[in-house]
Amino acid sequence: MADARDVDGWTCPVPLRGHDRIVMGHGGGGKLSSELIEHLFVPAFNDGARIELHDAATVPVATGRLAFATDSYVVRPLFFAGGCIGDLAVNGTVNDLAMSGAQPIAMSAGFILEEGLPMATLAAVVEAMAMAAATAGVQIVTGDTKVVGVGQADGMYVNTAGIGMIPEHVDIRPGRARPGDVVILSGPIGEHGVAVLSTREGFEFGTDVRTDSAALNGLVGDMIAAFADIHVLRDATRGGVTAVLCEIAASAQLGIEFDERAIPIPPAVAAACSFLGLDAMHIANEGKLVAFVPPRGVDDVMDAMHRHDLGREACVIGRVVADHPGTVVARTALGALRVVDVPLGEQLPRIC
Amino acid sequence: MADARDVDGWTCPVPLRGHDRIVMGHGGGGKLSSELIEHLFVPAFNDGARIELHDAATVPVATGRLAFATDSYVVRPLFFAGGCIGDLAVNGTVNDLAMSGAQPIAMSAGFILEEGLPMATLAAVVEAMAMAAATAGVQIVTGDTKVVGVGQADGMYVNTAGIGMIPEHVDIRPGRARPGDVVILSGPIGEHGVAVLSTREGFEFGTDVRTDSAALNGLVGDMIAAFADIHVLRDATRGGVTAVLCEIAASAQLGIEFDERAIPIPPAVAAACSFLGLDAMHIANEGKLVAFVPPRGVDDVMDAMHRHDLGREACVIGRVVADHPGTVVARTALGALRVVDVPLGEQLPRIC
Repeated sequence: MADARDVDGWTCPVPLRGHDRIVMGHGGGGKLSSELIEHLFVPAFNDGARIELHDAATVPVATGRLAFATDSYVVRPLFFAGGCIGDLAVNGTVNDLAMSGAQPIAMSAGFILEEGLPMATLAAVVEAMAMAAATAGVQIVTGDTKVVGVGQADGMYVNTAGIGMIPEHVDIRPGRARPGDVVILSGPIGEHGVAVLSTREGFEFGTDVRTDSAALNGLVGDMIAAFADIHVLRDATRGGVTAVLCEIAASAQLGIEFDERAIPIPPAVAAACSFLGLDAMHIANEGKLVAFVPPRGVDDVMDAMHRHDLGREACVIGRVVADHPGTVVARTALGALRVVDVPLGEQLPRIC
Repeated sequence: MADARDVDGWTCPVPLRGHDRIVMGHGGGGKLSSELIEHLFVPAFNDGARIELHDAATVPVATGRLAFATDSYVVRPLFFAGGCIGDLAVNGTVNDLAMSGAQPIAMSAGFILEEGLPMATLAAVVEAMAMAAATAGVQIVTGDTKVVGVGQADGMYVNTAGIGMIPEHVDIRPGRARPGDVVILSGPIGEHGVAVLSTREGFEFGTDVRTDSAALNGLVGDMIAAFADIHVLRDATRGGVTAVLCEIAASAQLGIEFDERAIPIPPAVAAACSFLGLDAMHIANEGKLVAFVPPRGVDDVMDAMHRHDLGREACVIGRVVADHPGTVVARTALGALRVVDVPLGEQLPRIC
């Protein structure tokens, strides 16, 4: 694997040491479950405060609007170039919250583990989750572990849910798209899908492509600080940028036009797509967003994005029009127009 | 199966009709994913209000303490006597919130589906979730669906996360147990585990035992209204009543004594346990709670419980003592005392 973590170097803490692999009892609610929580999850996810284990975590909130999101992760393989299921699971839910303009305040983690999973693999995933959560500035406060038999899961699946507060005066949602809105893409596309695929299939090409998995709440915070009246934000995950544009066009019953030549596609991604017959516009990203901004805010938003590491290559790719409601139209490299539609499913299954 | 739902009678709405089984594309973020959301999840989970699909749901909250919990469900089989994975997934998370005294305000649902799962099975589970949520007075506001290949899951797994507000002046947590607290059990134990097991294994005995799966937030609300200073609440799920008592004894560093003869065990559960060599005190329940209440509140709490359908058979089973901290002691039918401990794992895997 191009970037697999060194899980062999992990040392199993006593009393997990007796089990270097997951057994059914780790999901049974008895001593083995308690030991997993006490010796693995709490040290990784807790910030050092004295905590009291309970069925639910308690989170203080102030009057306002809470954003609430969840995602399950079934990516295969568990570790791939530049990341793993752990950081993906944290970043994905943080990003779902950020697309409402919310900053995350707490997350949950639910694990479904296959009997026989090496304890070191679980530990590496948990460590990646803890690091990703610290980077995003959110704490994992509650969780759950279930174990299923051999052949009843593919190593492990992770669910995260998250809550975050939406700042006052911020109203970011698909229905707020308006004719004239400028469509901004935060950076180059296609890296996550190609990174997972090249690790999974052992391709020789594309091995220098790493996932773009990243928490976008910092970038979104800067964008909102620069111009609060952003209309729509959407991260371009499953279905890629195409799915985002088509869903918003359908949801707001407006047309969207974009310029194919404006879409930044890294050469290694373009090469992999060309070889495999994939369309980079359909490939999942895990650290890219599409923003719909009224013209008067575009300069401020673009400046804020360009100053942030995750928006340095932000670019305008199109605009919202009153014509052809519900339809997305691409201007091709030759200047022709073509209708763009979402595929039925996903070109690459189990990408997140 | 004793109480399997009639999934054959379910009619697949257009345009899901083209697929009577789950295919990979239903998790791909394209049109098939959208159709599943639009034609199955939204009609089932939405209360009729116009909704706008977004990465996160928005939930208004007031200043206070939010309870936040999650659970994944891997129960096998998916349908068993008296319930299915769907109502279990809703009730379990509602109960985790209720054990902090919280009333649920919103839930998420994350599905991991195995390719080939009959659409009618998914629909029956979703319908059961919707009914359970309505009964508990909570709405499922956000979700996610992933599909994995044949042999990479066992039909389907469900994750739920939930949030709820904890009433002011309520402080219910394991660390509040005090010597002298009276330990109350809300009703007969062992039904859930035996119901699942007898459906799973096709036993002739125990077939009249149905799961006790129920949302306890209404019962807890009544208990708090009768006496707000309840010290500890815990639902007796994985590990059964024994695990609850042992965890609280360890967490509060206090001793607990209970009377084995006081534990209500239905005859059919006792028969199944005797046949299989199981201990009913270790078996998972999904609608029973254990309450630790200071003596001055016991009469009010018991009265409130006896007036509620889910607490009609509530009984005092023991008390908290300052002796033998961290240890749970049972008084046997013969009047002898014995130390009670949690098992390493679970007697019955994949029970929830």
